[in-house]
Amino acid sequence: MLLDSPAQLTPHLPQQVSSDFRDAMRRLAASVMIITSRDADGAPHGMVASSVISVSMDPPSMLIAVNRNAGIHPVLLRTKRFCINLLSDMQSDQLKPFSTSALRHQRFQSDEWSDAWTTDSGRLPWLPDAPASVECAVDLVTDYGTHSLFIGHVLQVHCAPTSMAGQLTSGPLVWLAGQQASLSLQ
Amino acid sequence: MLLDSPAQLTPHLPQQVSSDFRDAMRRLAASVMIITSRDADGAPHGMVASSVISVSMDPPSMLIAVNRNAGIHPVLLRTKRFCINLLSDMQSDQLKPFSTSALRHQRFQSDEWSDAWTTDSGRLPWLPDAPASVECAVDLVTDYGTHSLFIGHVLQVHCAPTSMAGQLTSGPLVWLAGQQASLSLQ
Repeated sequence: MLLDSPAQLTPHLPQQVSSDFRDAMRRLAASVMIITSRDADGAPHGMVASSVISVSMDPPSMLIAVNRNAGIHPVLLRTKRFCINLLSDMQSDQLKPFSTSALRHQRFQSDEWSDAWTTDSGRLPWLPDAPASVECAVDLVTDYGTHSLFIGHVLQVHCAPTSMAGQLTSGPLVWLAGQQASLSLQ
Repeated sequence: MLLDSPAQLTPHLPQQVSSDFRDAMRRLAASVMIITSRDADGAPHGMVASSVISVSMDPPSMLIAVNRNAGIHPVLLRTKRFCINLLSDMQSDQLKPFSTSALRHQRFQSDEWSDAWTTDSGRLPWLPDAPASVECAVDLVTDYGTHSLFIGHVLQVHCAPTSMAGQLTSGPLVWLAGQQASLSLQ
């Protein structure tokens, strides 16, 4: 067994690995979501994310990776609730305010959002027209590198209605190579 | 604060949540990969996966969610190495053997695979024509529900060459609503 042989562990300079890794990740297509939460003062928070996966079906559960510098990070740690809103390709106008700190004041301003400004602190902001919104309660937090991984079990799910033929009116918003991509079923 | 109010925590029957959650996850588009490893006897192992994300850029790192019943699970626990092969839409013929137990003997048989049958136990099987292959060493394993989460730092990356114009010759293989989907940049 040569699993830990130096030739395998350090085949590249670390800088080369970082640069190649960025290149590789640009080749991965990922659905884009907005994760929301609400702080202890009742204010809504949100961030754009694509590092989101389902973990298990038993219990139904999801994982999100959040940079520890993100504004929503301390909110998630404290209130232990998040809502994952899977964006449709008709909702790309939501990306800019939720991914730009200077546009923070524009977040949750469009009437596409429900429960953003409610006084009911138990409700999280969600998008009724999103293909799906999944609300989770955090069970486990693990730190790694610059990020925390939040794993939560699913509390409730909302799926946007489909057409009479069972089709969604729009597909998911997908990011590839740093830009929006269109998806069609084969 | 009503964060833990029963009305929010149990809005649906558990069965309804499970069924709605499956429905929601079918609306998420995800790149498809084959994760490979090698057991202590030198035999290659592989599984199809889409619950794969990058965790952080510092260090470059990835996370995979693996069912504890999967054949590759004890291999990952023991040898602590995996290679994520991002499939292209020209590589869908790899899916069937790697997602069907009865076709296990067909895995790694095509000459698309490199380092599958080498006697060098330090090398993991990888696909030179895949848009990207990322080899990782496991740093952290966390169990949740039916799955284990393996988080590893990146050891090496291979990106398939692009055309003269910097374009990939084929896009990533993407799964949506239980079937293969085509992607085009907008």
